[in-house]
Amino acid sequence: MNTIRICLLSIVCGMLAATNLTAQAFKGLALTPPMGWNSWNTFRMDINEQLIRETADAMASSGMKDAGYTYVVIDDGWASGRDEEGYLVPDPERFPSGIKALADYVHSLGLKLGIYACAGTQTCGGKPGSRGYEYQDARTFARWEVDFVKYDWCHTGTQSAVDSYRTMSDAIRKAGRPMVFSICEWGKNEPWKWGEGIGHMWRTTGDIADSWDGTLSDGSQANGLGWTQILDMQVGLDKYAGPDHWNDPDMLIVGMGNLNPNEYRAHFTMWCMLAAPLMAGNDLRKMDRTTLGILTHKELLEINQDHMGIQAFKVVDEGDLEVWIKDLKGEDLAVCFLNRGDEDYSLTFDWEVIGLRVVYRIRDVWARKNTGNTRSFFEATVPARDVILLRLKK
Amino acid sequence: MNTIRICLLSIVCGMLAATNLTAQAFKGLALTPPMGWNSWNTFRMDINEQLIRETADAMASSGMKDAGYTYVVIDDGWASGRDEEGYLVPDPERFPSGIKALADYVHSLGLKLGIYACAGTQTCGGKPGSRGYEYQDARTFARWEVDFVKYDWCHTGTQSAVDSYRTMSDAIRKAGRPMVFSICEWGKNEPWKWGEGIGHMWRTTGDIADSWDGTLSDGSQANGLGWTQILDMQVGLDKYAGPDHWNDPDMLIVGMGNLNPNEYRAHFTMWCMLAAPLMAGNDLRKMDRTTLGILTHKELLEINQDHMGIQAFKVVDEGDLEVWIKDLKGEDLAVCFLNRGDEDYSLTFDWEVIGLRVVYRIRDVWARKNTGNTRSFFEATVPARDVILLRLKK
Repeated sequence: MNTIRICLLSIVCGMLAATNLTAQAFKGLALTPPMGWNSWNTFRMDINEQLIRETADAMASSGMKDAGYTYVVIDDGWASGRDEEGYLVPDPERFPSGIKALADYVHSLGLKLGIYACAGTQTCGGKPGSRGYEYQDARTFARWEVDFVKYDWCHTGTQSAVDSYRTMSDAIRKAGRPMVFSICEWGKNEPWKWGEGIGHMWRTTGDIADSWDGTLSDGSQANGLGWTQILDMQVGLDKYAGPDHWNDPDMLIVGMGNLNPNEYRAHFTMWCMLAAPLMAGNDLRKMDRTTLGILTHKELLEINQDHMGIQAFKVVDEGDLEVWIKDLKGEDLAVCFLNRGDEDYSLTFDWEVIGLRVVYRIRDVWARKNTGNTRSFFEATVPARDVILLRLKK
Repeated sequence: MNTIRICLLSIVCGMLAATNLTAQAFKGLALTPPMGWNSWNTFRMDINEQLIRETADAMASSGMKDAGYTYVVIDDGWASGRDEEGYLVPDPERFPSGIKALADYVHSLGLKLGIYACAGTQTCGGKPGSRGYEYQDARTFARWEVDFVKYDWCHTGTQSAVDSYRTMSDAIRKAGRPMVFSICEWGKNEPWKWGEGIGHMWRTTGDIADSWDGTLSDGSQANGLGWTQILDMQVGLDKYAGPDHWNDPDMLIVGMGNLNPNEYRAHFTMWCMLAAPLMAGNDLRKMDRTTLGILTHKELLEINQDHMGIQAFKVVDEGDLEVWIKDLKGEDLAVCFLNRGDEDYSLTFDWEVIGLRVVYRIRDVWARKNTGNTRSFFEATVPARDVILLRLKK
C-alpha cells in the first residue's frame, strides 16, 4: 500500500501546486484599467461573429490597438442554450464557427477576447444563466481561450451577490486560464466593499445611456443614466479603487451619436480621471476622426493608465464647475476643470486651493501645449459642457 | 432556411415536453413521509461500500423493507474529489466499485439509494461542496441512478438559502430522474416557509444526538440536541407540512444505545405523530428484537404514513405530561399521551378537552388492544419517559 499512498500524495501535491499557479494567473491581470470594446452599447442583442471579427479588424487597424485597447468583448446574445452535458452552446446562426474560432481570430490580431455570462438563472436578455453551472461555464470559457468574463446580475432572485460572484471567481481560478473577471452587479450591493480579490473591476451603477444627463435631445428620458449622473455617483468611491480592483462607471458612449464632440471629450476625460476601465461602446467600423481622436488621445490615456492606479476625487464643486484631481506617478497631478453648464465658464484658479507645496510646470492635455507653471493663478475659459485638463509636472 | 427552422422548433418543443416530464417526475415522490436509513448517526464519516451493502441486506432481510423502509442513504464521507471535468469522484478506497454499482445492488434488493451533497464550497466533513457545480452534480447522481439527495448547509458563507436550495432543486428536475430532495438547512432560515415545491422535506433544527434532553447519562452535554429538545421546536410548524413537503426533525436514534426501550419508544412514537420522515440511524446489521419491534410497529407506521399527511399538534401541556393529536384518514384520530418526567403519571382524560363530537372506539396502539370508547373519561398511567398512543376510530 505504501506505493499507492505515495502516488496519491504526489497527485495531491501536484493539485496544490496547480491551484497556486492558477491563483497567480488570476492576480495581476488588470494592474491598470482594462481597455477594449464591448458590443452592448451599440448592438444590444443583435450580434454575430462577423460583427466581432470586423470590430477586431477595426480595433487593430484604426490605431485603437496601438493606443492600448485590447479586449473585444462579446456581450449578451451569443449563447443559444446548453447541450446534454450542460455546456453552453453558441447561437448556431449568429456564431456558426463557435467562440474558440473567434478567439483564435482575435488572438491572431494581437487582441484578446471577452465574453458575457450572468449570475442568475437567465441572462438579462433571456439566454442561459450560469447559476448552478459556474465551474462548468468557467471551464468552457477557458477552453475557448477567452480572456475576459463580464458577469451580469439579472434573474438572481434573493441570491447573495458576494457569494454568487465569489463562486464564479473561484470557478475562473479553478479553470486555470488567466481571465479578467468583470463584476456587473450595478452597484446594488456596494461591490466596492467586497469586490477586491473577487473580481478585477465592478460596476458601480446601472447602465449608461448615450446622454449627458439622462435626457435625450427631444427632452425624453434616456434608457439608462446620463454620464454626468453616473459621475455624481462616483464621489466617495475613489478609496476603493486600485491596481487589479477598479470601480467601473460603465462603458464609454464616445462616438455613439447623441452628443457633441465637446460633450464626449468631457465624458472621456472624466472616465480617464476616474481610472475607469475604458471599454468603447461605439461602432468601431464606422468611427469618424473626431471619435478616434478622443478615444486614442495618448496623453489622456497615460493619465487613465497611470501605474499608481489612483482614482480622481472632486476637490471643488461650484455648481456648474467642478475640479477633480488625480495623483499620478512621479508626484505628477492631473487637474480637470469640468464645466457641466450650458455657458462658458471664466476661471481664475488659485493653486493654493489644492495645497500645492512646490511649483509645477503645466501641460494642457487637450491643447497639447505647455502653459507656464503654478507660480501664478490659472486663468482660462472652460467652454460649455467641456473640460480643461491639465497635467502638472514636477 | 425553412427546413432548419422547423427542425429547431421541433427540438424546442421536444425540450419543453421533456421539461414538463421531469417536473412531473419530481412532484409526488414523497406523498407520505420517506422511510429509510442514513449512515450519519452511527457511522459519521467512517463509511464504505461494504457497510452500505450489508445495511441494504439487513434492511431487506430483517423485516424493515416489508415495514416500508426504502431509502438507504449514504451521508457525508463518500466523495474524494472531482475529476478534470468537475465530476464528483467517489473515494477510491472506501467506494472502489463506485456509486452506480452500489445503486444497482440496492435496487436489486427492491430498495432505493440516497446520497449526500452540500450547498457550500465544502461538505460539513470537508469533502467537495456542490456550490457552482449544482447541475453537474445532479446529473451525476441521476446517472448513478440515485433516488434521494440529502443536501447540507456547511461552508455556505452568506449564500441565500432559498436560492441555493432552489438551484439544486432546479438541477435535480433538469437531470430528469425522480430523486427525493431532502433540504438539510437545520432550520436556520425557516425553510418551512419556502421549502414546499423546492424540496420534499426540510430539516427544522440542528442535528439530533442519541439523548433524551441533550445530556448524556454521565451528565455531560451530548454532541447535538436531545430528541425532546427537538420536539419542543416543532410546535407551530404543523401547518407547513403535508404530502410531498414534510418538516424533518432529523433522523431516528432508536437502537443507538444510550436510551432505554421506553425512551426510544416515546421518541419513535412522537416522530410518527409528527409525520416525520423516518430514517433509522442505528446499525441495522446489529439490531436487537426490541429495536426492530419499535421501528417496524405496523399500526404506528400506519399513523406516520397516513395519506392525509397531517402533522400532530400539541393540545395539552401540563408540564411533564403532553397530549398530541394527529388527524388521520376516515376522521380517525391519533392521540398521544407523552410523559416526559421521571415519575409515572396517573391520568384521567376528559375527551371534551379535544372537542370530540362523536363517539370513537379506542385502540391502544402499543398494547395492541381495543380499550372501550370515548363515552367515558380515559384513565391510565403513563410510565416515566414513555407514551400511551391511542388510535380513535369512528
